[in-house]
Amino acid sequence: MRQNEAPGASAKLSASARLSASTRLTSFVAAASWDDIAAHGREAKRSILNFFATALGSSYDPVVTSALRALSPFAGTATSAIIGRMERLDALSASFVNAISANLLDFDDTHLDTIIHPAAPVAAPVLALAEARGFSGRDVITAFVLGVDVECRIGNAVSPGHYKRGWHITSTCGVFGAAAACAKLLGLPADQIAHAIGIAASQSAGIVENLPSAAKNVSVGNAARNGLFAALLAEQGYTASPLAIEGPLGWAQAMGDEPNLARMFDGLGQSFEIAKNTYKPYPAGIVFHAVIDACFKLRARIDGDIDSIAAVTVRGSALLLARGDRAVRNERDARVSIHHCAACALLLGAAGVVEFSEITVARPDIAALRERVRAELDASLPDGAARVELELRSGERLEEIVMNARGSLADPLSDADIESKLRAGLVLGGSDWDADGIIDAVWRLDTLKDVSSLISAPRRPSGR
Amino acid sequence: MRQNEAPGASAKLSASARLSASTRLTSFVAAASWDDIAAHGREAKRSILNFFATALGSSYDPVVTSALRALSPFAGTATSAIIGRMERLDALSASFVNAISANLLDFDDTHLDTIIHPAAPVAAPVLALAEARGFSGRDVITAFVLGVDVECRIGNAVSPGHYKRGWHITSTCGVFGAAAACAKLLGLPADQIAHAIGIAASQSAGIVENLPSAAKNVSVGNAARNGLFAALLAEQGYTASPLAIEGPLGWAQAMGDEPNLARMFDGLGQSFEIAKNTYKPYPAGIVFHAVIDACFKLRARIDGDIDSIAAVTVRGSALLLARGDRAVRNERDARVSIHHCAACALLLGAAGVVEFSEITVARPDIAALRERVRAELDASLPDGAARVELELRSGERLEEIVMNARGSLADPLSDADIESKLRAGLVLGGSDWDADGIIDAVWRLDTLKDVSSLISAPRRPSGR
Repeated sequence: MRQNEAPGASAKLSASARLSASTRLTSFVAAASWDDIAAHGREAKRSILNFFATALGSSYDPVVTSALRALSPFAGTATSAIIGRMERLDALSASFVNAISANLLDFDDTHLDTIIHPAAPVAAPVLALAEARGFSGRDVITAFVLGVDVECRIGNAVSPGHYKRGWHITSTCGVFGAAAACAKLLGLPADQIAHAIGIAASQSAGIVENLPSAAKNVSVGNAARNGLFAALLAEQGYTASPLAIEGPLGWAQAMGDEPNLARMFDGLGQSFEIAKNTYKPYPAGIVFHAVIDACFKLRARIDGDIDSIAAVTVRGSALLLARGDRAVRNERDARVSIHHCAACALLLGAAGVVEFSEITVARPDIAALRERVRAELDASLPDGAARVELELRSGERLEEIVMNARGSLADPLSDADIESKLRAGLVLGGSDWDADGIIDAVWRLDTLKDVSSLISAPRRPSGR
Repeated sequence: MRQNEAPGASAKLSASARLSASTRLTSFVAAASWDDIAAHGREAKRSILNFFATALGSSYDPVVTSALRALSPFAGTATSAIIGRMERLDALSASFVNAISANLLDFDDTHLDTIIHPAAPVAAPVLALAEARGFSGRDVITAFVLGVDVECRIGNAVSPGHYKRGWHITSTCGVFGAAAACAKLLGLPADQIAHAIGIAASQSAGIVENLPSAAKNVSVGNAARNGLFAALLAEQGYTASPLAIEGPLGWAQAMGDEPNLARMFDGLGQSFEIAKNTYKPYPAGIVFHAVIDACFKLRARIDGDIDSIAAVTVRGSALLLARGDRAVRNERDARVSIHHCAACALLLGAAGVVEFSEITVARPDIAALRERVRAELDASLPDGAARVELELRSGERLEEIVMNARGSLADPLSDADIESKLRAGLVLGGSDWDADGIIDAVWRLDTLKDVSSLISAPRRPSGR
């Protein structure tokens, strides 16, 4: 009765894509076990460690505190931790708050093909639910790897048109990952996993226009919360169209410009999207990292003599310019500003959390250097690369090109780097949780019988 | 810095539309008082009465019961009624459940220009919040009228491209109405009302592909719940882009095909969209009502002699055919089926809740008559009209054209009709609430000091 079951279905879809996307993704998620994903256990742990690092860094941010204040009167039995804090909420509310804190600093992980930040919407509900119900570490890792796979595969299918149209892809695809992961964790049968994914399609939301405001955090938090909610509703018998994603009036058509649905299934079950996950050394938009690295190199070449600089020209792809050529008034602007990233790297030789704080944003010397930075299109550069040129007062010109920023797949952060990021995040966030305890528990995650020990144990004795 | 503040802004936008949509809608919502909307108080009451009628009719539907079961462990202090039932939930959760029950039978009110069903996403959170906090009847009516206005005006701006693209407009625009209404009810200042509306833009979701499934109810429930949530977050200081709706990467661009933003402001403050609200006599998609009325007339002309019918041809606009030419397997299908609507009206001379129930759907005589109904495009007919032709076994042809269905603006339901609908709904839904009490309280709504009496009082003595 529906178009893609008919013999004359759209020629744009390959034969394999004619099967319902939900059905194919679902069969894969339902059938997969620990053994199928164990090879990706280490990357899952790195991603979860990075998730804790970023969530701890924002655990007492006013946006997080306000979310807690708004939700508390409406929260049920407090089964799940708010990461880095003493408060606890029900699993739905905790999913919302923890996804916000994990994503708030733009410091979370990145799936470079789609610019999805995979962990925040998926790890938040998986951990909140696992803590509430006492699931094992292997259950958590399995659900997380599968959720990230579903999230990023759906993102692959609609990229790059989806983001360009104005959709904040971490939010809009995150809800699918959260739904798949939570449905798996709940042990739902295949048909209910399919319904959870289909219900997620009716909850997918979040616009790019709102990125410089707290409304961004709402869509990220909702992706986590509503993915879990979709799984809970499916568990109670709620249904969705089997063509919720790819039907003629479905999600991909409504939200994507020229989706390529077959991409959802490229190597499904053979390769896993989490293998393409990357971790940021700097709390700025991922496309700015090459700018920062190039500026570090140039700073070394002028021995930090900033006064010698007459002008700075940053060249990059259209994406870099579209995202980053903007006035800087606050922290959120700074994290997506070519000018601010270049200024901090050149003047301070650093691009950590402090360099993107309100205090640094307002520094007159940083503001003055920002003014000297010009952004220009270099269409020959791929997204994620940057070319930075200094014009010195002497007339000399120096240039550095960075094709693969630190933290990219070609130059990944080490495990120790991520551990350091977590320790720094904990200090930054003012949390009393125990960094060593979290780090140790995450590396041992596949041996934990009940992950609630990961979340409830790692407070320092003074913490309660 | 942003495009529609620049001198060279898109020529497609009129000068007045260049002002931020949120700002203009917000100034209006913030400034309006009871005196400004009092003239529309009666229509608001009719809409709220119809809201209770439809919510009562579904109060014990399995979809509602499942939602309650899924949400209960995650619900906070039980401040707000679940309409028609004894259970109570927190205001966010109650908003979700009551919006679902009000919309579940496709029997709720309709803004014909957009096919938005305005009340479910707006009345549900307004009443749940008012009950929790003890707001007055005038506060409720004022917030409701303004919320419906914002919801339908934003819908006007993106119609008809938005729905055609696959967006379930009651869900996607309902969240704006809910946000505006709740922000008004909370007494937020203008800037926070603007943020609530902007936050709603990052929560707007719901696809047409999922309409024949419970996933549809999720997006309607979320519209109500998330609109209230947007207002609560704005109250706590959450912000949104001032261009969340009309910015280059904003809601209208992402979700609409060829939006006409200036339409949002046509007669703003002079005319109110609630004046265009209509109430359904039949629990079917609004575009099927003219089909039913035409069949009633034809049935009278053949004195109910169904065996005399050889064939039935229903002609209507592309919208009618797109929505209604489908196989019928269950209640949800039946409510959006040309074939089922025609069969019930011809065979049973009725099109009430019973006629769209599972039992009637499965009747062999109804199924057989459905088979004899053919649907054809008549592009000369406007949406909402229908031409039905009977070919009798005698060879005679009879035809009826209905341009304005019963319940439309040209032939509205009377107050007594809506009261009857509520009484029938209460019986259908198996609720023990007191129909007389609700009807009386709604008509006196503008005199109630505290609307919690509307919701907590109307149970029959045996009900608790």
